[in-house]
Amino acid sequence: MYRTKTCGELRAADIEQTVTLAGWVQKTRKMGGMAFVDIRDRYGITQLVFNQEVDAPLCEKANKLGREFVIQVTGVVKERSNKNTHIPTGEIELIVSELNILNVAATPPFTIEDETDGGDDLRMKYRYLDLRRNIVRSNLELRHRMTIEVRSYLDKQGFMEVETPVLISSTPEGARDFVVPSRMNPGQFYALPQSPQTFKQLLMVSGFDRYFQIVKCFRDEDLRADRQPEFTQIDCEMSFVEQEDVLQVFEGMSKHLFKSILGTEIKDAFPRMTWHEAMKLYGSDKPDTRFGMQFVELADVLKDRGFSVFDNAAYIGGICAEGAAVYTRKQLDALTDFVKRPQIGAKGLVYARVEEDGTVKSSVDKFYTQEALQQLKAAFSAKPGDLILILSGDDVMKTRKQLNELRLEMGSQLGLRDKNKFSCLWVVDFPLFEWSEEDGRFYAMHHPFTSPKPEDIYLLDSDPGAVRANAYDMVINGVEVGGGSIRIHDSALQNKMFSFLGFTEEQAQARFGFLMNAFKYGAPPHGGLAYGLDRWVSLFAGLDSIRDCIAFPKNNSGRDVMIDAPSPIDQSQLDELNLSIRSAAK
Amino acid sequence: MYRTKTCGELRAADIEQTVTLAGWVQKTRKMGGMAFVDIRDRYGITQLVFNQEVDAPLCEKANKLGREFVIQVTGVVKERSNKNTHIPTGEIELIVSELNILNVAATPPFTIEDETDGGDDLRMKYRYLDLRRNIVRSNLELRHRMTIEVRSYLDKQGFMEVETPVLISSTPEGARDFVVPSRMNPGQFYALPQSPQTFKQLLMVSGFDRYFQIVKCFRDEDLRADRQPEFTQIDCEMSFVEQEDVLQVFEGMSKHLFKSILGTEIKDAFPRMTWHEAMKLYGSDKPDTRFGMQFVELADVLKDRGFSVFDNAAYIGGICAEGAAVYTRKQLDALTDFVKRPQIGAKGLVYARVEEDGTVKSSVDKFYTQEALQQLKAAFSAKPGDLILILSGDDVMKTRKQLNELRLEMGSQLGLRDKNKFSCLWVVDFPLFEWSEEDGRFYAMHHPFTSPKPEDIYLLDSDPGAVRANAYDMVINGVEVGGGSIRIHDSALQNKMFSFLGFTEEQAQARFGFLMNAFKYGAPPHGGLAYGLDRWVSLFAGLDSIRDCIAFPKNNSGRDVMIDAPSPIDQSQLDELNLSIRSAAK
Repeated sequence: MYRTKTCGELRAADIEQTVTLAGWVQKTRKMGGMAFVDIRDRYGITQLVFNQEVDAPLCEKANKLGREFVIQVTGVVKERSNKNTHIPTGEIELIVSELNILNVAATPPFTIEDETDGGDDLRMKYRYLDLRRNIVRSNLELRHRMTIEVRSYLDKQGFMEVETPVLISSTPEGARDFVVPSRMNPGQFYALPQSPQTFKQLLMVSGFDRYFQIVKCFRDEDLRADRQPEFTQIDCEMSFVEQEDVLQVFEGMSKHLFKSILGTEIKDAFPRMTWHEAMKLYGSDKPDTRFGMQFVELADVLKDRGFSVFDNAAYIGGICAEGAAVYTRKQLDALTDFVKRPQIGAKGLVYARVEEDGTVKSSVDKFYTQEALQQLKAAFSAKPGDLILILSGDDVMKTRKQLNELRLEMGSQLGLRDKNKFSCLWVVDFPLFEWSEEDGRFYAMHHPFTSPKPEDIYLLDSDPGAVRANAYDMVINGVEVGGGSIRIHDSALQNKMFSFLGFTEEQAQARFGFLMNAFKYGAPPHGGLAYGLDRWVSLFAGLDSIRDCIAFPKNNSGRDVMIDAPSPIDQSQLDELNLSIRSAAK
Repeated sequence: MYRTKTCGELRAADIEQTVTLAGWVQKTRKMGGMAFVDIRDRYGITQLVFNQEVDAPLCEKANKLGREFVIQVTGVVKERSNKNTHIPTGEIELIVSELNILNVAATPPFTIEDETDGGDDLRMKYRYLDLRRNIVRSNLELRHRMTIEVRSYLDKQGFMEVETPVLISSTPEGARDFVVPSRMNPGQFYALPQSPQTFKQLLMVSGFDRYFQIVKCFRDEDLRADRQPEFTQIDCEMSFVEQEDVLQVFEGMSKHLFKSILGTEIKDAFPRMTWHEAMKLYGSDKPDTRFGMQFVELADVLKDRGFSVFDNAAYIGGICAEGAAVYTRKQLDALTDFVKRPQIGAKGLVYARVEEDGTVKSSVDKFYTQEALQQLKAAFSAKPGDLILILSGDDVMKTRKQLNELRLEMGSQLGLRDKNKFSCLWVVDFPLFEWSEEDGRFYAMHHPFTSPKPEDIYLLDSDPGAVRANAYDMVINGVEVGGGSIRIHDSALQNKMFSFLGFTEEQAQARFGFLMNAFKYGAPPHGGLAYGLDRWVSLFAGLDSIRDCIAFPKNNSGRDVMIDAPSPIDQSQLDELNLSIRSAAK
């Protein structure tokens, strides 16, 4: 061992001990006849002192140390005269008698500090240096800690971690698969799993009863912000359960994580909200419930008063932003621009201020009497100083989604989305089907194995859009951290589902064959869910991007710029795989 | 929840309780006016009783249950008159008042019993049914338990689990990579990692200090027995350590596993043996030390006595099999055939029996006097009843390897390789280089980052074959469960190594570039090792094949016969990837 202590553990109690430390040079300072060097490792920073008078050559050597040199030092721990209360080792310093340079270092391309001067691209190229920064490494420490706690909780609950294969066939899920050519089976390909969905259901057929796995999954998607081609799921499945059982177990797991990781005890049950309610009150199936500002529907109040925009709208809804009546004209114009951005697509924004005297001043005063505006105020129970913001449109769901964006923006502007505050929620009763305007047909909203609610099955033929699924999402602070469903275990119902979704028997067999075959041999009732680990860690760490909790992430083109992957391969490799690369279309 | 208890937990203390169970029908028997049904789940088996006189329709329904039907039953726990001491629930039975068939089952293609009638191919095709067998599932339970204990131990030792990427570039290791075409980067490919070797070294450069990961690795090899294209490593790396530190930590981990998993306390330090000693005494770098039968070199005793085979041999060595003098001529001929098999390749086998009266009777009596044979006996300290087996050859290492095979075979025949006995060993001081006759040059025995022993560095130019590496393997019962090395962290030494291995600077840069660049910015001394999880679980489970501790293994052609992977993909997928499949050569 190159050290007797780490750079983070020396305290006043260690004074007068002789110790050896090893680590990186964080900083050197020359002061009078002294050299001060901060030595850093994963565990902390310790101040080293070299005295010119005591040992001039040693002090000289210390003065020549460069940033990020790797050194080993031996010395005696002494009390500092100027204590540093900002760091745990701030009471002591090490008077060095021996200095051994273990490795030199070129000057790093950016500073190894919490506030670095390195831009995103540079930091990604030199990710191994970026990872030296406390602020980055601590996210990965949190990630480690969370997986330890997840495994500990699930193990205690009788869940077994089972590794499912990475080299599989194409799965029936929606997104595009990454494929792997097989050398031993020319012309054939493995696919990388988008999730272990079918395998975990097979494990239930196998009687494993309670399964989990923290597992890499892969999707070859065009990368939007904050998506990675490889990501990590906490994947879980249980047998002989109903929806309530799944919710209980995983609410328990979440509370365990809040307690063990953040020290936050959540005593109450997580609120539950139906999908319909979430859409009506927040215009989102993952509402951020850290703040109120719920939607109020305003057709009764604002229609048929001669304002044609509202009169012709299918939906009129608004939010009330407490205390925001102070917004200037410029700020209101900016909000209007915000909702009119193509990504949001609203046609305009109507606002109404509640003045100090209780009167309401709106952007549509010429169409509405003060009496009507007072009714508007009453609809929100708005107080003097509040600002009411109203959107309308001819598509109910679209308008709600626009209003959701506005609500989130206002929440941010008013400081209501505190990263240190957490608001958990179950969204339940998702619709079983989703209508595709484009294709003129229904699709399974989750996947075709999701169980409808038994009490809704009678609607399958008459009103499929109204059939609710035993499907649920866990939402924290507006982030969908996990979701799942009870699966269909009855083959008659499964066949009905396939035929409803337009699969012939042959098509169903071709796509879902081995799972359907397995189900013939005694499938238990089962259900489960999967969490996105990257998202959850980001949430707990207060990060804006999942990238910062992934050791070696890829950029938006799916490239790892540090190792320069992907890259061309040798012709001999292509030959062995029986593949040719076509010349790209010009 | 479909149950109030599992099928494995009812005991005498539960008598008179009303409970609900859910599980699979293991067996049904009709006896007198009663029906007996064994219900099974992951946790055990409970006997259900249906009484014709009490409820004839219910009893009738029970009689119609097929094997592997999924049922839910409610009833009262009663004491059994005929207790079954073989199962934990054997004191009780459930008098059923309600029976609910949750799912029917087709007759499985083989019996769900420890001793099944299903052959290997059938069991692999219906792996989800095979996994219902206790004997298979318990291997996966053991695997789960071992990973829990590995993580618990390493976490307590300050190791952080860090996920390294699966989509990377080709690694410099020997075997063939699986590659993944990139749609977004046409003509370029990711590679799946053969191990996270470079990433874990980068994490040391990042100052992570102690890293581990239980991680899938991939090798596109022609599959010999007991190799899988995807396998799982316990991958570890530490900074600021010397070889002794690594051995201590991982010997500790092994002892923790023996204790926590098998209940075996190992107090003594693991024996250590140099690679040279292992080759000399066992003809193997992974000797099975559950039994002795060490090699004795016999040139001094047997040469120059007129037996030309021995006189011309570069190596003559033998083993002494205690009590095996009773071997018949037929058995000895079979041993001769065994060593002459092409896989082993010996030219012949010489044997010598020590008779009851102490005289020695050999297969080469005409060349050796009894006096010479007594010297042979003395060389082994052989006793009456022992059998001495001798091989010779003109290549020392080859002959040792042949003798190793013979020793293992004799160990098996004499019952000395007890699966419930464990013998652990460190093999240390591996040679740094391996001479390739074919290419007429040296190769790195492990990888080019392995550190030579400092005291041997002076031999690099004069006698490279004699340079020992700071490399080590952990061997249990003749299985290499893990191995690793101290890495080179000094770039001058690293460059010397590259140039010795025949890399130009450009070639070294092209192959190892990003790691070499990282090393410029302050690499700490570091080293580590990796365990094969599959092998270790197999060893603890007493399995002959790693396949039985993998939930969904592949066969020797790399196929998953259950899901039928790999498989052809759509033309549209190939188009998106810019690939063509060449028509296979005829």
